[in-house]
This record gives sequence, C-alpha cells and structure tokens, in this order.
Amino acid sequence: MRRICVFIGSRANYSSIKSVMRAVKENPDTELQLVTGASALLERFGKVDDLIKNDGFIPDYSFHNIVEGGSPTTMAKSTGLGVIEMAMVLDNLKPDFVIVVGDRFEMMAITIAAAYMNIRIAHTMGGEVTGTIDESIRHAITKFAHIHFPANRDARDRIIRMGEEESHVFNVGCPRIDLVAEELKKDSIEFLNNGSKFFDKYKGVGGTFDFEKPFLMVSQHPVTTEFGDNRRQIENTLNALSELKINTIVLWPNIDAGSDEVAKGIRTFREKHNADWLHAFISLPTDVYIHLMNTTDCLIGNSSSGIREGAFIGVPVVNIGTRQKFRMRAENVIDVDHSTTEILDGITKHLKNSRYERSTIYGDGTAGERISGILGEVNPPVQKHIVY
Amino acid sequence: MRRICVFIGSRANYSSIKSVMRAVKENPDTELQLVTGASALLERFGKVDDLIKNDGFIPDYSFHNIVEGGSPTTMAKSTGLGVIEMAMVLDNLKPDFVIVVGDRFEMMAITIAAAYMNIRIAHTMGGEVTGTIDESIRHAITKFAHIHFPANRDARDRIIRMGEEESHVFNVGCPRIDLVAEELKKDSIEFLNNGSKFFDKYKGVGGTFDFEKPFLMVSQHPVTTEFGDNRRQIENTLNALSELKINTIVLWPNIDAGSDEVAKGIRTFREKHNADWLHAFISLPTDVYIHLMNTTDCLIGNSSSGIREGAFIGVPVVNIGTRQKFRMRAENVIDVDHSTTEILDGITKHLKNSRYERSTIYGDGTAGERISGILGEVNPPVQKHIVY
Amino acid sequence: MRRICVFIGSRANYSSIKSVMRAVKENPDTELQLVTGASALLERFGKVDDLIKNDGFIPDYSFHNIVEGGSPTTMAKSTGLGVIEMAMVLDNLKPDFVIVVGDRFEMMAITIAAAYMNIRIAHTMGGEVTGTIDESIRHAITKFAHIHFPANRDARDRIIRMGEEESHVFNVGCPRIDLVAEELKKDSIEFLNNGSKFFDKYKGVGGTFDFEKPFLMVSQHPVTTEFGDNRRQIENTLNALSELKINTIVLWPNIDAGSDEVAKGIRTFREKHNADWLHAFISLPTDVYIHLMNTTDCLIGNSSSGIREGAFIGVPVVNIGTRQKFRMRAENVIDVDHSTTEILDGITKHLKNSRYERSTIYGDGTAGERISGILGEVNPPVQKHIVY
Amino acid sequence: MRRICVFIGSRANYSSIKSVMRAVKENPDTELQLVTGASALLERFGKVDDLIKNDGFIPDYSFHNIVEGGSPTTMAKSTGLGVIEMAMVLDNLKPDFVIVVGDRFEMMAITIAAAYMNIRIAHTMGGEVTGTIDESIRHAITKFAHIHFPANRDARDRIIRMGEEESHVFNVGCPRIDLVAEELKKDSIEFLNNGSKFFDKYKGVGGTFDFEKPFLMVSQHPVTTEFGDNRRQIENTLNALSELKINTIVLWPNIDAGSDEVAKGIRTFREKHNADWLHAFISLPTDVYIHLMNTTDCLIGNSSSGIREGAFIGVPVVNIGTRQKFRMRAENVIDVDHSTTEILDGITKHLKNSRYERSTIYGDGTAGERISGILGEVNPPVQKHIVY
Repeated sequence: MRRICVFIGSRANYSSIKSVMRAVKENPDTELQLVTGASALLERFGKVDDLIKNDGFIPDYSFHNIVEGGSPTTMAKSTGLGVIEMAMVLDNLKPDFVIVVGDRFEMMAITIAAAYMNIRIAHTMGGEVTGTIDESIRHAITKFAHIHFPANRDARDRIIRMGEEESHVFNVGCPRIDLVAEELKKDSIEFLNNGSKFFDKYKGVGGTFDFEKPFLMVSQHPVTTEFGDNRRQIENTLNALSELKINTIVLWPNIDAGSDEVAKGIRTFREKHNADWLHAFISLPTDVYIHLMNTTDCLIGNSSSGIREGAFIGVPVVNIGTRQKFRMRAENVIDVDHSTTEILDGITKHLKNSRYERSTIYGDGTAGERISGILGEVNPPVQKHIVY
Repeated sequence: MRRICVFIGSRANYSSIKSVMRAVKENPDTELQLVTGASALLERFGKVDDLIKNDGFIPDYSFHNIVEGGSPTTMAKSTGLGVIEMAMVLDNLKPDFVIVVGDRFEMMAITIAAAYMNIRIAHTMGGEVTGTIDESIRHAITKFAHIHFPANRDARDRIIRMGEEESHVFNVGCPRIDLVAEELKKDSIEFLNNGSKFFDKYKGVGGTFDFEKPFLMVSQHPVTTEFGDNRRQIENTLNALSELKINTIVLWPNIDAGSDEVAKGIRTFREKHNADWLHAFISLPTDVYIHLMNTTDCLIGNSSSGIREGAFIGVPVVNIGTRQKFRMRAENVIDVDHSTTEILDGITKHLKNSRYERSTIYGDGTAGERISGILGEVNPPVQKHIVY
Repeated sequence: MRRICVFIGSRANYSSIKSVMRAVKENPDTELQLVTGASALLERFGKVDDLIKNDGFIPDYSFHNIVEGGSPTTMAKSTGLGVIEMAMVLDNLKPDFVIVVGDRFEMMAITIAAAYMNIRIAHTMGGEVTGTIDESIRHAITKFAHIHFPANRDARDRIIRMGEEESHVFNVGCPRIDLVAEELKKDSIEFLNNGSKFFDKYKGVGGTFDFEKPFLMVSQHPVTTEFGDNRRQIENTLNALSELKINTIVLWPNIDAGSDEVAKGIRTFREKHNADWLHAFISLPTDVYIHLMNTTDCLIGNSSSGIREGAFIGVPVVNIGTRQKFRMRAENVIDVDHSTTEILDGITKHLKNSRYERSTIYGDGTAGERISGILGEVNPPVQKHIVY
Repeated sequence: MRRICVFIGSRANYSSIKSVMRAVKENPDTELQLVTGASALLERFGKVDDLIKNDGFIPDYSFHNIVEGGSPTTMAKSTGLGVIEMAMVLDNLKPDFVIVVGDRFEMMAITIAAAYMNIRIAHTMGGEVTGTIDESIRHAITKFAHIHFPANRDARDRIIRMGEEESHVFNVGCPRIDLVAEELKKDSIEFLNNGSKFFDKYKGVGGTFDFEKPFLMVSQHPVTTEFGDNRRQIENTLNALSELKINTIVLWPNIDAGSDEVAKGIRTFREKHNADWLHAFISLPTDVYIHLMNTTDCLIGNSSSGIREGAFIGVPVVNIGTRQKFRMRAENVIDVDHSTTEILDGITKHLKNSRYERSTIYGDGTAGERISGILGEVNPPVQKHIVY
C-alpha cells in the first residue's frame, strides 16, 4: 500500500485537492497522509483546518510556518521555516509520494523538502500560465516533480515542452471540477429556491427576486497590472447592464491591489442610478456559487470560474479584458474588451441562445479517482532527467 | 550604478565565479556585493572564505546555515535556514541582481529568497544535464532566473527550449575558463619545473620524474550509479597503462560513493605490479592541475576537466565510460568504453598526434567581463512568463 | 566609545527604554545601536517602529520573527526564529552591551543570542514579581545578565538574593518615570483644556465636561486567574461610583482573558443606569493619560500605572483587589477589596485630602541618564558566577 | 499514567539520565517519551543515539539542530533551531513533564519550548557552580523549572536560596552514581583481569602490568582560564610521580582549550624520561574507568570523577588546583596546589591508608527510581512564583 502525503496550506488548496484526498482514502492501493500548515491554520484566512476535520480528514501533522508581516521578506522566511518543518514531518511520515497542489509560495517549501529527501513528487495544476511570482514557482515545481497532473491539454503540452518525460504527464482534468460535478447532481433551482432565505442568509443589498426568472451575474476582479483603470472598467460593465435592467447579482471583488477601485465603482453606481435591479453580495459559499452559475442566463466579468468551472457547467460567459488571456476556452465564452458596447453585444448574443453543452476541457469530474489510480501504480525513477 | 550580489557557498562556487566578481568590481557600471555561507565557511570543506578574503574580496555578510548530519533531511533543513538568513541579508543589501552559481542544494535557498523578494536573478551554468538532485535544482533555478548565462551552446538551447525568453539567454562561456586562460599566460614547463619541489610539495607516492619528458595523467572518479563496478573500471585503465609504462600521474578519486573502490584499485595495483612509473597524488591545486593538463601527452579517465577546461587547453583526452555522456565535446576527446583494449587504443592514437587547437565551445576566457557588461545594461521585467 | 545595543520588540518596550536610548545617544562615551523586531513591526500591534523613526532613531537592523498563530507553540517558534535572526544581527553589530528590556517572551531570544555570543547583557526592570510565563522569563534573564537595572528597591533586593553580585545591581528607577517627569513640565489643565477637542479627538461616549471641575478616573483590567468573576468586580466599582455621580472617565480594559466580562459590565451599566456622568474611552495616548492622572481627583481600579507612575505624580489611588499585590506602594495608594463599600470609603477618604507629594520609589526621572552613565564605565566579567 | 519526556542531546547526557529512563519505563505510573537530537546524532561526537537504541530505548522523535561552525554564533543558531524543532515535537508528544538534563547550550532550547508551551519541567543536576556559559544556563533553567533534582545538598541549598519553592527541590543524588553502583556489583579485578586483553584492546602506549599490583591513575584536564600554564601544571604532576615510579595509567586530556599543552607535556615527559612505568590511553569506556577507579591506589589530577563518582567508590584522590573548587567533597579527597612536593605528599599520605568508606553525598545509587517515583506523584502549578 502506497503512502500518499497531501499538504494543504490554504483554503483554495483544499477545494483543489479534496476529491483526490477522498479517492486516495478509498482506494485500497493507497493510504492518505495529511499535513496542514501555513494559512490553512490561521483564523484570518478562514482556518480551513477546521473544515477539513469536519469532513472527516484527520491531519497527521500540522505546523505553523507563516512569519507575520505580509511582506516579500516574510514570504521568503515563511518558506524557509516551512522547509525546516516539512523535513521533520517527512522524516516521520516517509511517504511514497507527496502531492504538491498548485503554485502558492509555501508549496515551494514542501517541494524542496520532498525533493531533497528523495521522496517523489506529484504536482497538480502545473503547466498553466498566470502572473506574479506564482508563475515562476509553478514551473520550478514542474522541474522537481516526478508525476504531473495538469488540469487541461494546453498545460499538459507546456509541461512536456519544458522537457518533462511525456509518460509521466497525465491530463486528468481539474479536481475542482469533481466537486462541481457532484454538486450538480442536486436541482439548482430547488437549491436556491428557498429564495427569500438566500437573500436573507447572505445579506445582499438590493432586495430579493425569483430565481426562476432570468437573471445575470457579475464577477469582475481588479487587474493588478492595470491599477488605476479598474474603476472605469467596472463602470463600463455596469453601464452595459443598465441598458438591460435585468436582475443582476454582483459579487464583491477579491482583495488584490485595485479592489477598492472596483468596490467604489459599484457602490457609487448603485447610489447614483438608484439601480434596484442590482443585488450586491460580499461573498457566497462555493456550492451556492455553483448553483447560481448553473441557473444564471449570463455570467459577466473576468473571473476564472467562468472559464474553468463554467466550461463544465455550460454557463454563457462574457469574459472582459486581459485577466484570463492565457486560459483555454470552451464555446461558452465570448471574449470582449472593456467597452460598454462590446459587453452589451456579448450579453445580448448569449441571451438569444440557450445554455451550452457540458465541456470537459477542464475535466470531467473524475480527476480525483484518476490521480489516486495512477499514484497507486506508477513508478517514476527518483533521479529525473530533462528529456532533451 | 547597479548592485550585483554574488553568493558563494562552496570552494567550487568560487572558481566558477571569481572572474565575474573581478569584472563586476572593475566595471564602473556595477558594484559588487559579496555574501558567503554554507560550506564556504567550514574548515572541513577547505574554508574558501579565507582564500576569498586573501584575494581582496571582503564579504558584506557571511552566515552559517549548514545543519550538521550529512543526510537528505539536514540538506533540506540547511536550505530552509539558508532562505531565512538570505532574506535578512537581501533586506539589507537590496541588490539589483543576485547571481546564482550552478546547482548545489544551497543555491535553491538563495534563489527563493531573491525571487520571493522581487530581486532579479542571474544564473550561471544553467541548462546542463547531469545527475543527482542537482539536475532538478538547476532547471528549477532556470525557471526562477531572469537572465541566463549558460556556459555552452547546448545549454543555451536547452534553456530556450524550456520556455525562457531567448533575448535573456547569453552563451558567454564558462567563467572557469577565464581562470584557465589567465593561468596559461605563464610557461607551464617552467611553472612545473621546480620539478623536485613539485613532488616534494604535493607529497606524491612513487618518486619524481622530469616534466620535459612525456607523461600521462589519470583522473578517474567513481560513478555512483555503477556502484560495485568501480574497482574493475579503474583496473581496466591501469592495465592499459601498464602496457605503456610511461610516467603517469594518477589523482585520487573524489569522495562520492564508490570512491573506496577506486582508491583500493589503485593502491592494490601499485603494490602488486611494483609500478614505479605510477605517481599518485591526493590532490593538487587548480593552477598546478591546469599546467599539468597543458603539458601532459594524454589525460585519461572521466573527469569533466578533460571535456571542459581540456577543450580550451587542447589536451588529448581519452574519456572512459558514461560519466560525461551529456557534455559537449571538442575534437580533443576520444570516447571509449571500460575496456583495456579500447583505452590503450585511444591513448596510442593520441600519442601519435600533437596537441589540439584551442576550442572555445566552453568559453574563450572573457565570460567574467561579458557577464558584468550585460548585467550593467540589461533590463528584464521582474514578472516572468513562459514563452509558449 | 562603547556600543550599546537596544532591542525593541513591542510598543511597551519603547516607552520603557526611550529615555535610555536618548541618553545613550547623547552620552559621548556610548553609542546607540538599535534593533527592532517582533510585534514592534506589526500593524496590528500598532507598529511602534514608525513612531521610533519619527522620533529620530534609525534602526540598524529590523527583523520579523513572529510566527503567526497566537498559540503557545508559535510563541516558542517565534522565539527560536528570534535567536537565529538576532545571532546574525549581533554578528554584524558586535556591541559591548545588549540592553534587554523587561520580560516579554521574545526577550529570551535576545538574551540567549547575546549570552551565547559572549556579549554582556544589561537588564532593565528585573527582580519584579508578576504572573504568567513572564515571571520565569524575567528571572531567567537575571541569571544571564551581567548588569541589572531594577526599577525599585524591592526588585533590587530580590535580584541580589537570587545570587547576583551586589555591585552589578543598580536601582536606577524606572525609565518610564523619565517620560512622566518630562511630560509634567507642561501645564496639565492647559494641555487638556482644549476640552471639547479632547472629547472629540478620542471619541469618548457620554458627552463632555470641564477639566477644571472635579473628576474621577477608572482603569480596571481583568484578572486572568479570576476569570468568571470580572463582571461582578467592575460592577462593584461602578456601583460605588454611582453613589457619587461625579464626572468619571472610564478606560476600556486591555485584551487579556476576561476582558469581555469587564467590557460587558461597563456597557450594561451605562445603558441600565443612564449614567451621563460616565465617559468611556477605548484608549488614550500616553501623554494624555499622564495629564489626566495629574489632574483627576482619584484614580480607581487595578492598573499598575496608579502604583508606579502614580507614585511619582502623587495621584490619589484606590487600588482594588489582587492584581498589584506584589508591587511596592507609595503613600498615594489606598488598597481595598472588591467591595462597593470599601471602594466608596477609599474614594471618599481621598477626596477629603489634597494630592500627594511626589514619591521616587519608582524613580526620580533620571533613569535614562544613570543607565547610560553606568554602561559607559562598568566592567563586569563575561564569565558570571553565582555569589553563594 | 504520566508521560515523562526525556531529551538527550549528547553522550554525557545519556549517562546522566539512563537510570532515570529505565526507572520511568518500569514504573507503572509513568511512561517514557524519548527525544534525541543535537550532538547525540552526530558521528564525530560518538553518535550516542545508536547506543541508546542498542539499550532498547526507541526515540519517539530525533532531530538534527546543530548548525555547523563551532562558533558562539552557531551555538546560538543551533539553539534557535532547537526551539523550533522541539516545539513541533512537544506539540505531538504532549508530555506531562519534560526532563531537562544539566546545562549544555542545547538544553536551553528544550527548556524554552517546554516552558512557553505550559509543559512542566523537571531539571536534574541544577544548583551546581562551574564556569563557562553553562553556569548561566544552569541557573536560568532553574528559574524555568517546576521540579528540581539536584545531585547533592549544596546544590539543593543553592536552588532554594535562588527563590525556588523548597517543597519542589529534591536532593535525590546524581543518576550517574546509579550506573556506578550497578557496575560495582561486578568484581573489578576480574573485570580488568583479562589484563593483557585490556592493554591490547584500548591500545595504551607503555606496555602491560598486573592489576593486582599497586597502580596509580592520572586524569588531568586543561583549565581554560589558566591557558598557557597547563604544560607546567602537568609536568609538576609527572615529576611527582617520577619520584615513585609506580605503574601509572595516564588518560589523555579532553579537548578544551589548553588540551594541546597537556598532551605535549605528557608526550615529552615520556620520551625524555624513558618512563616505562607510564601507560597512556586516549580514552576508556565508562565501565572500564569505574573498575579502574575501584582498583587504583590513588587517582591524581583534576577530574570531576574523583570528586563525584570517587566519593561513592571511595577511591583515594589527590585533587590538584582550582578546577573542582566549587564542588562538595567526601573524605576521599586531598586538595593540593600545582606543586610537585604537595602532590607527592598527597599521594604518599593516601598510599599509607586503605581505601575510603562509600560516601553518598553525590547519591546512593537510587536517583533514577526516586526521580521516577516523584514525577509519578508531584503536582507543581504551571505558574511559578519566586518565593521572596
């Protein structure tokens, strides 16, 4: 029986690997070892550790390694401390494989500890292209990893082009889609159709409406490299929507640089236009968000969820601007610029059509099982070599 | 003026970067910041820190980060501690570029600290193919580095194929060749021709001989992946040489796994064959070794020096076995298997010819100046992107 | 010229050592080296680092060492990291003395780094008796320290009884009193007498009043070991005050365990009794607090400020309960139990008298100068020995 | 059942706590948790970890924390790393008590981790007076410890004078004496009387002799604070012995500063005086040493073994100079100065008498059992308070 060690360092990590953990636990050929650390243990990042335990996963080890300060220097120091702690943990767990999830800074600590200690690494969600230091971290992890589980075909191709052995690269799809697939077994309208409860529970501003009627959704985040332009961008979107005045759920932007510009744009628009068709929410749980995507007539903005989960759900998406430029798209996506006219055109086009067929370019809901199956069998050598 | 920070973590690092340090120091556009650490500070690894100071380079910071134990676990922990220390150092030095030399485990610490702190990285000797964990480390550093200084054309091509921006990859040659070029300005025979002193000083076993007369050299190291076969391998070499009975300097193997097999092979052969033509040395200083390469009639074995420095020096080399299989060769190298006949044939062939033309496939002696010149001008963005 | 290194790890540290820093800087025999770290650098603890710089002190080094998590385990890890960082810093600063202030957990890191590196330690505020782990830390630092600067006679005697060399123990008074003495050069009424501004600026609840008229102050903190009883305790105090209905400034409790009980007690009392004579403030700057102490007719509660700074200021104090049981008192303090009657009696007694004479049992305002003077001269051996 | 955690960081630690470990393991009220680290894991310090395992103790955790470099700075950094590692270990083991042995630098790491994590500390061998940084460490540990197990009455009194609660200080004797008592159940002459084997096995220089005949022993170590005078000191001792020319076993000095002076003194004396009665040994196992002490007619020098184990064994001791000045003595010790005459007089006096009665001032051989018994019952509060 192979020991498969998963490290979870953040809330996002958990939803990206949960279906894998379940599959590893259930597979008779594999045994799950679980380690939690970094921001997964911290209250102010939602302490996903508690949620993990509630789901029945008991961590073998947990360690705090975040050096407070929120600066590039402390990010480096947290990583250094993470290597030291993880070395101790691996010394005790002696796994056959360590699964490294994605590309956050603390994942480099896990990677170094495992690689230096001759423990084989399986990497999920490698080969993608994004920005920030995550871009470098992701590809560096690829160069340490023995087995690759990219989430789509482009990513797979990129990993192979980087010199990885093709037979060790498996396009299994994104494990996050597994959770979507499971959630979609429920009836979305029914799920949301404690309608009044929904608006009550998640404390939106702007009154209630009936989910059986048409509604739109907006999820538009700041683009850090376009700092200063984000307010104009959200206003263009809202102006397009005000031509339609269909009920619209708008989600608060995440907290990257530029977030205040977007937030201010939304707030001012609501007040100035007295827009009673606009219903704003600070945040929504993942399952609620999935059912909204499954029900809305069009999702507008620049969230990756439209591209990735949206492909599987088949939700019509108007994707605005540059934020998702490096991602593969299914046919559910219309790309437009930050122009009121283009946005309006995109929405109108979608409203004429029905929803889209399910696309599996980001996975078909079986990633967890496939990963656990492969890790139960595969035997890559510890010594890697670039193929060219 | 740009601040260029060099980290030296071992004796080998220093000879790989010394000419660059000198050039950075002399270039009016660049300022040298020097940090020493890891085994560069430790007595049992030759404490190269003292030598560096004697050469007139004063470290801005020095830090101990080697956790004693010599195991994979402590290698990881030393790296973690190195990240923490280097973060502190970079916080104070605030360099424009950090030069990361090669691929030893501690270099990952320097790389992470710099990359996470948004300091641009220049990497020397990337793109090569070897073994051990160094192989993964080297390519991972490439994925973090902003400017690449590979030592040869193959390495340059490999870096570009890995998705690095071509305009940031400079084949400047190996800075170690700069030191060779400088050393070769002296007369080798004269340098060695305090002959008796030479044998006296370096305490060889096997009596003296005259360097104006023909002599051979053997530098054959264990191949860790061929553990158990190393004694037979060195015996094949010595048997070939005993056909010739020309004066031969044999150097002790380095301390990788299998070293004892090679050492025992040499010792037993000398005793059994009463081989007075065999002159064994524990170790020789770099300058002496260069002049010997410049004088010997043939270098036999599997040392990288025959391939790399040897190309520039033009020394006839019989390269045995698999240890150098991934390296580019100039015409001075004859490759043979571990077979007494093949080895003997190779040597005989070389002895008939004269020495070879200087080849610059591993550099022409100007790497230091070129690196300092480029770093004084180049402006790569901090945010990297894979090119495909 | 002697190098005197001060480490500041928290907001409280700074007010406890500021006058010493100034004196060391001005003394021609001593040179100030400043290091900041721990919570002194963190936003959520008020980032005193900024204040320090505004006051003209430039840190030689700053380092983050707080491992986030707020648990006993992370407190230990933060200390471990602090030792590592401080070792690096001391390696560079090479001071003659390190001043260790008080007894917070991070001070042990500074102490160990200095002691192990053969750097002499001067300890302020040792020899006192309190609770929590600070009690053990304080006395352990005493056993590492070479020079002791206790803040009062009792503390001095205790240090000597612990086996420290008497000639190395100097009762110089508390450096915090130096700041009080300086502040009191101003006219307190005038300072506060932008009356309306005061109430405006510090956002009290409960309306304004005139500082020339009589008023009381309450500063009552939870006692962690009496958890569960803290609400009853504050209510007893407020009930006593409601007999008098004199204007009263009540300060919010600090955030130790039990804080919520006290806060709830105050809030409920205000609402239930419609107590317009009660003016509650979240927090006040130190200088404002000093002038209030210098003006109020009576300070009621269990804050150490009444006992320590209060002795120097001569403010009438009714000290309630056990929290200050181990501290020396001047004649300005009446000790009472948590009983409405006793508290009321205490206040009434004080209101009949005028204010008290300045007492110097906690210092006369010259601690900073005396410490700097002594450190400029004293020569304790690095090797300590217990005296018995 | 109480969990008692023992940390072993060096070879010396193990012999100081082995009998306690055995007793804790056998006591039904206590459970042994074992952690090894620091130099206990390192080859060049004898890797006592292997011996521990051979004795049937399986460590729950082992961690490397020694930062190589052998300097005061690395001593501090090793301690910092030790705190971090030990925090992780204690988080997992959750012991009721941690036993801290003696006063070496790494013990401070264990102490801080345990104290900060609210785990009660039992300290052995506190209250003694020696030199170096150990002196400060020992007393600082005392200020953190909840239960004290000093090895003799003087040490107990000192701990109480330092302000520790008398009822928590137990003079149980030194656990090292337990091992002596057990060893002495064997017949010493018989044990040594594979005479020729003895000389053969431990590779002494100077020929063999019969252990039934009279013989002397010399164990004289350098005094670091008397650096420069150590050669003269050993020569005085050897000159005294050369008056007697009785067979004498001389042991090599330990490796403190000044060791070379002593070693050179011995070597030169042997050569110059052709002293065939002098038998020099590099080192001897503990059990052999105990039987030699139990057989020799006089032990000469400045080793603590003469004072401590010697008291129990009753061996006549001539103790020279200042090195043991702070230790309690039984009647077996004659103190002399570094004078040939005084030393000779001391030996002669002893040779006239028989051996001495067993003294239990350093323990009666039951320390282990008593410590385990006390830890099974005692309940000190986690919150300490100095008693005065």
